[in-house]
Amino acid sequence: MAVMGRSSRSLKQMIVAALMVAAASFGPGTACAQTGPLPSWNEGAAKRSLVDFVGRVTREGGPDYVPPAERIAVFDNDGTLWAEQPEYFQARFAFDRIRALAAEHPEWRDRQPFKSVIDGDAKGLAAAGQTGIVEILTATHAGMTTAEFDAIVADWLRTARHPRFDRPYDSLVYQPMLELLGYLRADGFKTFIVSGGGVEFMRVFAERAYGIPPEQVVGSSGVTRFEMRPDGRPVLVKEPRVAFVDDGPGKPAGINRFIGRAPILAFGNSDGDRQMLEWIAAGDGPRFLGLVHHTDAEREYAYDRQSPVGRLDEALDEAERRGWTIVDMKRDWNAIFPPAPRGGR
Amino acid sequence: MAVMGRSSRSLKQMIVAALMVAAASFGPGTACAQTGPLPSWNEGAAKRSLVDFVGRVTREGGPDYVPPAERIAVFDNDGTLWAEQPEYFQARFAFDRIRALAAEHPEWRDRQPFKSVIDGDAKGLAAAGQTGIVEILTATHAGMTTAEFDAIVADWLRTARHPRFDRPYDSLVYQPMLELLGYLRADGFKTFIVSGGGVEFMRVFAERAYGIPPEQVVGSSGVTRFEMRPDGRPVLVKEPRVAFVDDGPGKPAGINRFIGRAPILAFGNSDGDRQMLEWIAAGDGPRFLGLVHHTDAEREYAYDRQSPVGRLDEALDEAERRGWTIVDMKRDWNAIFPPAPRGGR
Repeated sequence: MAVMGRSSRSLKQMIVAALMVAAASFGPGTACAQTGPLPSWNEGAAKRSLVDFVGRVTREGGPDYVPPAERIAVFDNDGTLWAEQPEYFQARFAFDRIRALAAEHPEWRDRQPFKSVIDGDAKGLAAAGQTGIVEILTATHAGMTTAEFDAIVADWLRTARHPRFDRPYDSLVYQPMLELLGYLRADGFKTFIVSGGGVEFMRVFAERAYGIPPEQVVGSSGVTRFEMRPDGRPVLVKEPRVAFVDDGPGKPAGINRFIGRAPILAFGNSDGDRQMLEWIAAGDGPRFLGLVHHTDAEREYAYDRQSPVGRLDEALDEAERRGWTIVDMKRDWNAIFPPAPRGGR
Repeated sequence: MAVMGRSSRSLKQMIVAALMVAAASFGPGTACAQTGPLPSWNEGAAKRSLVDFVGRVTREGGPDYVPPAERIAVFDNDGTLWAEQPEYFQARFAFDRIRALAAEHPEWRDRQPFKSVIDGDAKGLAAAGQTGIVEILTATHAGMTTAEFDAIVADWLRTARHPRFDRPYDSLVYQPMLELLGYLRADGFKTFIVSGGGVEFMRVFAERAYGIPPEQVVGSSGVTRFEMRPDGRPVLVKEPRVAFVDDGPGKPAGINRFIGRAPILAFGNSDGDRQMLEWIAAGDGPRFLGLVHHTDAEREYAYDRQSPVGRLDEALDEAERRGWTIVDMKRDWNAIFPPAPRGGR
């Protein structure tokens, strides 16, 4: 065990050093002066609460010590690890996909909700309601094998650009959260995503973007059907049926079903994370509950109680009442995104 | 990365050493003479195929090298990691639970399937069919919080004894498979259970019995409901509804949904594992597919094509045809179970 302990510390030092190099490359005005962990986090209550929590649960012999196997940390994805405006990125993927398939579906030109998507008519799309969403999901997320879907998503991530930032969607991840993920992992935490997004969609980029392997991504999912193809090759076909919705009260259920152990640290950013935070807070032992508050219209977006996407209202009140950590993006983060990728991406 | 490489090798050496000490404690007639890995495996084709496969996928620069992150190994549970006769142990748990609750349910004395369970009437129970099974599952696996269910299972594991071996059920795990799990983990594999058994049932003992943490247990599951109790404490209540059946064609679907990455090694023991093995075999790159064949009536049980529990028929034919590894328990294993626990357990 002594070997593991040494290795764990060395690994941590290496990661911290790597993060400092990364931070230094941001150029003037950012984190150059910082020398400790979490360089993109400004000194303040939010950063202090994180560093203090990690220190307490990793101090062997201390009253709040948590063994490594129980250091489970869960993160919402949309609005917590990557951006979610002006629409959830997976919705943008679905709309782009409808437009890419439109040539093969001339009938869509006169049929809702497809007509609205093709025409970029937000009002018409809203009028199509829940039924419209199901039709779009069926047309874009079902009827192919799991491997085919992966390839479609990967291709979209390679080619699509965010309308405001003009860079790939999976580069619009929050630099301070990348540092936090690395900081936690260096301290023996296992980091998971617990998101309302589609699990198969997220797994295409989660390992590359966040260092979170597929088996640590929990999300909403559809039913798949095992099918033996005529050539004797078995495949899984994505069916147009929802298997599990990992949002709101579904998040604690998803943690129970997919992880099976109560996390000790959780981060969200919207009312959809409320029950997850409540359920985790109710466990025994030390707990860290955090919310990202989008307060920076200049560098990212500012929205909370009124936003149709990532609405943060009741959970914000509860976080204030219960003393959970609220990260004020504008005040607490000195960088938002990593530097834009060069070249083709 | 050099640090990690060194640590990984040291850890492996430590685990191999620990296994050798454990093997030596079995006493005469078992594995004392063995000095390499997998001491409870006799020299032969099965052991050779395992050691050869692990050697190939871990040899950096070799044609079959697989990076550690992709070294996913999956194991069925019933009949593969622990025994499953004379009935699946989870069924025995359910029957014991019915008998324990019978005093609170006088109406069960005259109602099927409960009457048959209480009287130990196998024929009556069989006559109750699928409906009977659902009623037993509802009475024993629903209507309580997830934490309450965990405590009930833990208590049963502490007190119940196997009818033939007179020892706790979770001590009837296969020593050679424990060694294999450790051997794989020392070589950077991540080991998962993928079983038709209930995921919440297995998670109570999987970490202690196999070193497999809850988040690496995939199984069948029921629906849970998030409920805020009057005292403000949120809980998850187990409902009498099946969410997912992780058996047969459900196993590849379960691997896709819960793990999201194709395993490179899989072990099963019955026709319920067939589609999982077929699907994994169809992937690119090196693959190891294995079946445990129960051939040892003296030390464990002998059963295959005709058994109502753990029936191995079509998968056995397919394994022979395709050259998958078939472990002949009697011939290939020099030990079956670890030494019986002492004292209260």
